[in-house]
Amino acid sequence: MTTTSPVHHPRTAAAGTLAPSAPTPPSPGAPRPQADRLDVTALGRLLDGRWWELRRRARDLALRPELQKIEGLPTAEHRERVLAQLRDLVGTGEVLRAFPVELGGQDDPGGNIAGFEELAVADPSLQIKGGVQWGLFGSAVLHLGSEEHHRRFLPGIMDLSVPGCFAMTEIGHGSDVSSIATTATYDADAEEFVIHTPITAARKEYIGNAALHGRAAVVFAQLVTRGVNHGVHAFYVPLREDDGDGGLRFLPGVAGEDDGHKGGLNGVDNGRLWFDHVRVPRTNLLNRYGDVAPDGTYSSPIASPGRRFFTMLGTLVQGRVSLSGAAVSVSKMALAIAVRYGSERRQFTGADEHSEVVLLDYQQHQRRLLPLLARTYAATFAQAELLERFHGVFSGEHDTDADRQDLETLAAAAKPLTTWLALEALQEAREACGGAGFMAENRLVGLRQDMDVYVTFEGDNNVLLQLVGKRLLTDYGKEMAKVDIAGAARYVAARAADMTLHRTPLRRAAQSILDSGSRARSAGHLREADTQRELLEDRVEAMVEEIAGALRPARKASPVEAAALFNAHQHQLIEAARAHAELLQWEAFTAALPKVRDERTREVLTTLRDLFGLTLIEKNLAWYLVNGRISAQRAKTVTSYVDRLLVRLRPHALDLVDAFGYTAGHLRATIATGVEKERQDEAREYFRRLRAAGQEPVNEKVLHAGQQRAGVAQPSSAD
Amino acid sequence: MTTTSPVHHPRTAAAGTLAPSAPTPPSPGAPRPQADRLDVTALGRLLDGRWWELRRRARDLALRPELQKIEGLPTAEHRERVLAQLRDLVGTGEVLRAFPVELGGQDDPGGNIAGFEELAVADPSLQIKGGVQWGLFGSAVLHLGSEEHHRRFLPGIMDLSVPGCFAMTEIGHGSDVSSIATTATYDADAEEFVIHTPITAARKEYIGNAALHGRAAVVFAQLVTRGVNHGVHAFYVPLREDDGDGGLRFLPGVAGEDDGHKGGLNGVDNGRLWFDHVRVPRTNLLNRYGDVAPDGTYSSPIASPGRRFFTMLGTLVQGRVSLSGAAVSVSKMALAIAVRYGSERRQFTGADEHSEVVLLDYQQHQRRLLPLLARTYAATFAQAELLERFHGVFSGEHDTDADRQDLETLAAAAKPLTTWLALEALQEAREACGGAGFMAENRLVGLRQDMDVYVTFEGDNNVLLQLVGKRLLTDYGKEMAKVDIAGAARYVAARAADMTLHRTPLRRAAQSILDSGSRARSAGHLREADTQRELLEDRVEAMVEEIAGALRPARKASPVEAAALFNAHQHQLIEAARAHAELLQWEAFTAALPKVRDERTREVLTTLRDLFGLTLIEKNLAWYLVNGRISAQRAKTVTSYVDRLLVRLRPHALDLVDAFGYTAGHLRATIATGVEKERQDEAREYFRRLRAAGQEPVNEKVLHAGQQRAGVAQPSSAD
Repeated sequence: MTTTSPVHHPRTAAAGTLAPSAPTPPSPGAPRPQADRLDVTALGRLLDGRWWELRRRARDLALRPELQKIEGLPTAEHRERVLAQLRDLVGTGEVLRAFPVELGGQDDPGGNIAGFEELAVADPSLQIKGGVQWGLFGSAVLHLGSEEHHRRFLPGIMDLSVPGCFAMTEIGHGSDVSSIATTATYDADAEEFVIHTPITAARKEYIGNAALHGRAAVVFAQLVTRGVNHGVHAFYVPLREDDGDGGLRFLPGVAGEDDGHKGGLNGVDNGRLWFDHVRVPRTNLLNRYGDVAPDGTYSSPIASPGRRFFTMLGTLVQGRVSLSGAAVSVSKMALAIAVRYGSERRQFTGADEHSEVVLLDYQQHQRRLLPLLARTYAATFAQAELLERFHGVFSGEHDTDADRQDLETLAAAAKPLTTWLALEALQEAREACGGAGFMAENRLVGLRQDMDVYVTFEGDNNVLLQLVGKRLLTDYGKEMAKVDIAGAARYVAARAADMTLHRTPLRRAAQSILDSGSRARSAGHLREADTQRELLEDRVEAMVEEIAGALRPARKASPVEAAALFNAHQHQLIEAARAHAELLQWEAFTAALPKVRDERTREVLTTLRDLFGLTLIEKNLAWYLVNGRISAQRAKTVTSYVDRLLVRLRPHALDLVDAFGYTAGHLRATIATGVEKERQDEAREYFRRLRAAGQEPVNEKVLHAGQQRAGVAQPSSAD
Repeated sequence: MTTTSPVHHPRTAAAGTLAPSAPTPPSPGAPRPQADRLDVTALGRLLDGRWWELRRRARDLALRPELQKIEGLPTAEHRERVLAQLRDLVGTGEVLRAFPVELGGQDDPGGNIAGFEELAVADPSLQIKGGVQWGLFGSAVLHLGSEEHHRRFLPGIMDLSVPGCFAMTEIGHGSDVSSIATTATYDADAEEFVIHTPITAARKEYIGNAALHGRAAVVFAQLVTRGVNHGVHAFYVPLREDDGDGGLRFLPGVAGEDDGHKGGLNGVDNGRLWFDHVRVPRTNLLNRYGDVAPDGTYSSPIASPGRRFFTMLGTLVQGRVSLSGAAVSVSKMALAIAVRYGSERRQFTGADEHSEVVLLDYQQHQRRLLPLLARTYAATFAQAELLERFHGVFSGEHDTDADRQDLETLAAAAKPLTTWLALEALQEAREACGGAGFMAENRLVGLRQDMDVYVTFEGDNNVLLQLVGKRLLTDYGKEMAKVDIAGAARYVAARAADMTLHRTPLRRAAQSILDSGSRARSAGHLREADTQRELLEDRVEAMVEEIAGALRPARKASPVEAAALFNAHQHQLIEAARAHAELLQWEAFTAALPKVRDERTREVLTTLRDLFGLTLIEKNLAWYLVNGRISAQRAKTVTSYVDRLLVRLRPHALDLVDAFGYTAGHLRATIATGVEKERQDEAREYFRRLRAAGQEPVNEKVLHAGQQRAGVAQPSSAD
């Protein structure tokens, strides 16, 4: 729209009272001097981590229009589009890095995930359908099968000639995998397993590729041979065959249903599957961790059924790692969109009546977005560490039992925080962009719909945090047990020294004395990394210690009482796990700071880390106060210090999101392309010209004021 | 599925070690004795409030299949379906109660909104498209127009022969309505207004009915006559005419675009509109609060342009009231679905290895859902009070300027809390239902998508809370001013007495002494309504007082400094407003308790109110500690007391959601129909029979244990 037809008015006497428009003072949102800009390039390189080249290649793949999500596409079309996109991806070779070199892969588990994490930029359905095919179906064959299975099944999985399912979850059991009720009963006469769904609750549910495209599945079932149930094992089971009309039909004994429309990810055809005595050859058991001889004898390299089960499940941790990474990518996109729009959009005049205030200059807007930005940085650095660990285990470089257990705990701690962060970031971004945020063309709502299920699939977030909490209790118990064995006295002495420094009333008293100094001094103290670390660590340790103490009577209690006691501390345990996961993020963020060479950039990044640490402390301030870790006087400074950090970070917000490396082409959000600024420039120019030409109508308020000054009665009002 | 083909296994010796299955002990989720049930009928009547009959009629309308949303329906079909539904509604007469009796309405503004609040149960798009037509387009004519306008325009609006738009928001200005840039310039020669969109930023945006169905609009524009801008006024502007082919086409000078796909509410055809010197007769100005004589002379019953503007906008408050009510309805639905499913769904065995634990018996599950249930009750009672106020003003029963201002403030306080509650309740419910929560057939995701925009439209929630905060500051200022005039001494004396009781170190010291008593005593104290009220009130008052004090220097500061000072306290002001709004909800909840006749029901409802109060206090515990309102010792009891309330409320959760009055037919969520229990009954029966017949395979773990006891080497494991 041009300004060639401005509204034209006859001038009135009163119009002359308008002062000539003063030059607009530079707003806080105005461009900053180049000197204060961050080293965005180096920061971007740091954020993209070890596999930065692969990550960027995947990100650039997401620029291809044919791989991008079309918002509002009907479900049937979306599903076919995503299947076609997977075929495209096979051609690029970007998605097969985890597979063995001899089969055309690259034996590069870490690089593979780094790339997958970025596919969500194009369409989360693409990431998930690819994840089902290569990350779950393919990984199960890779990690639970033998080399013979690799040769038989992986080529078809890799080239997508056999789209497949990962049939683990049942409608009766999601989180509790060990209780699934599908059975695989060995028939020694036929040397076959009979896969069977005995009850409705045993139907496989929410299975990707099950509704339409799956030709085969890895089916998890209770392996029964010679009357003994050896627990959950995985079987390769063909599902569908060509129907001769260019379509597919179920094989005999296999049945299924379409899950229909979902809250998001509608490019993935989820469905239900069930089996009526479906027979598969004995050799279709993926037998790395448990095998059945032709005569029905069961054998396993792992004696304990429990350990065997967790080992098998543990090989599938990559799903959690890559979901966590995708959630980080999407959090970055959400904030890039909202910060760009918030840096341009203006609403309500402030001190200057001709210049409206940029949204991101409002304190509340900063409060809404900048702590999320700090969390996204923390999550990025923590994810990089998780990915290193993952690569260490699956490349075989660091692959002990302890390494695997640590990896699983780290993934269980990371995924809840990152996936909830993504939902929070997307929602806050969407609300911060107002009505524009609700339009599909600005992507926030579509991404949120797609990411929603990330918080409950591949391990429900609350269940995962509880796992982390139990691990914390176990570690605490081991530490205590060591104390019992290796000499309680030494431990108690060390502990006492620690207590003197950290946990005693003495320490608190000392703090109270220090606090009588200036507020600035207290705030400065809170900004020290050691103080933040101590506060965050201390909370985790004290919570775990408290829960362990509270649970001690459970050892001698009846099962019912023990269960009730544990349940009475479930919420607290989950909160302890969350605190632990947040501490891991804080540590990863802190460890990344020395890697920043440019001094100004490091300084700003340190401020962002402080914002992360202090908002964590602010969130749990009551705990710190009740437990005597922070005095009331110091606690008062936390919020005002957070406010000061927001002001310091505000000028760098754009640089901080630019470093994420998502261009307008990746974001594909109209509001993040500069259109808002164009509109505003047009509007300013229009009003400026109108004023310059003396054609702006007089504001009635100004007229009244003028008339009152001149002693003229207001002409036409009857109050 | 039947259990006629159970898996059959040869018995082994080890199978004999299985103990006969013990009778399952009653789980905490088992049916309760009838005597402990609440009076659900009376509670439901109380919740449905003054217009309960109309509310239930509307709720039953929502049972009609033709009015119900079909999840996943393509946008084009959904839009036509909702238009047809509106036509159906006209026939029922249920949606026209607000209009004048002489035109076929019932002059019943409160009853009208009560019904509208329930339409979201069928499809939020239906509520919103109806709201656009009758609540915004129609209300603007009703409240801003003359009787002549009513006669000319309302019949077509009421019978839907003229679907219309409420064209207020512009792409350049959403929340800041007074800055919109569309102009309506009076041409005295033609006796016409010229409606014009001078710049892109002035395009009307996100306008319901604009993309397709709108034949006319109430357009908000700056009224300019004789060179003076009299501010924003409303004009009735025809938009489209029949194109002769059964469709519609824009009238000359009118243009528009489709907003396309949105995050939800895709049954409403939102779009953009702009005008190129479109002429309408002078008499199309809706002139109740401002008129232009044929010669161009402006007149208004309200002299102050500012007050006039806010009066005009204030007449449109019903949008906020009805959105708030719809959000409460949907919160109820979300919790009804999640609590029903959570009362049946079991996952992981607890003390009894054959009986899995009901989700709602997990402490974390209670923590996630029951405080939301308490908030929903509080919101319901607060909404009833808001609706009474609304009815008072618009029925003319209590319609002073002060009444209107209070109503606007109450609506501005209510809508943010209720609409955010709806999103939180839907999201927590969706996550608490796991994968099932993500399926469209269980409604939670679809409702969340539709409700998302409620938090930013009809007044952005943050902007509304800031309005409330400013009102709190104004009231505080008036109180202070009164003190200046009416005698500071008396005020100070009263205040001092108050301080002695509530705010001094003395009081805190007294509390510390009291706190040295038992924890139970402290907790009991927190359960007293007066304690909760005092804590909640005190926080609001103290926050407002602190902000007012901090802003005092602004009076003498430059505009730039004053704006900066205000901005530095924006977050705090919004938090004060939130605290105020929460207090209003707490008071409404408390005021409702004596209306419950059944003693046991009142007791449980009081416990629910306590949960509401104590979770508010828990959320802001740091504030209470830092500001010396609660001792550290008492603070420690808050969380454990909340935990105890959860345990007490758990057995009544189903009754508490049943009282909402939404049957399975209203909820239309598969998981809320009892299918989960059927599946479990089938599974239990299957395993019981298997065990009874000695056909259950031996668990390998049990086998190992038995062999170890017998001194037999484990046969086939190589660890």
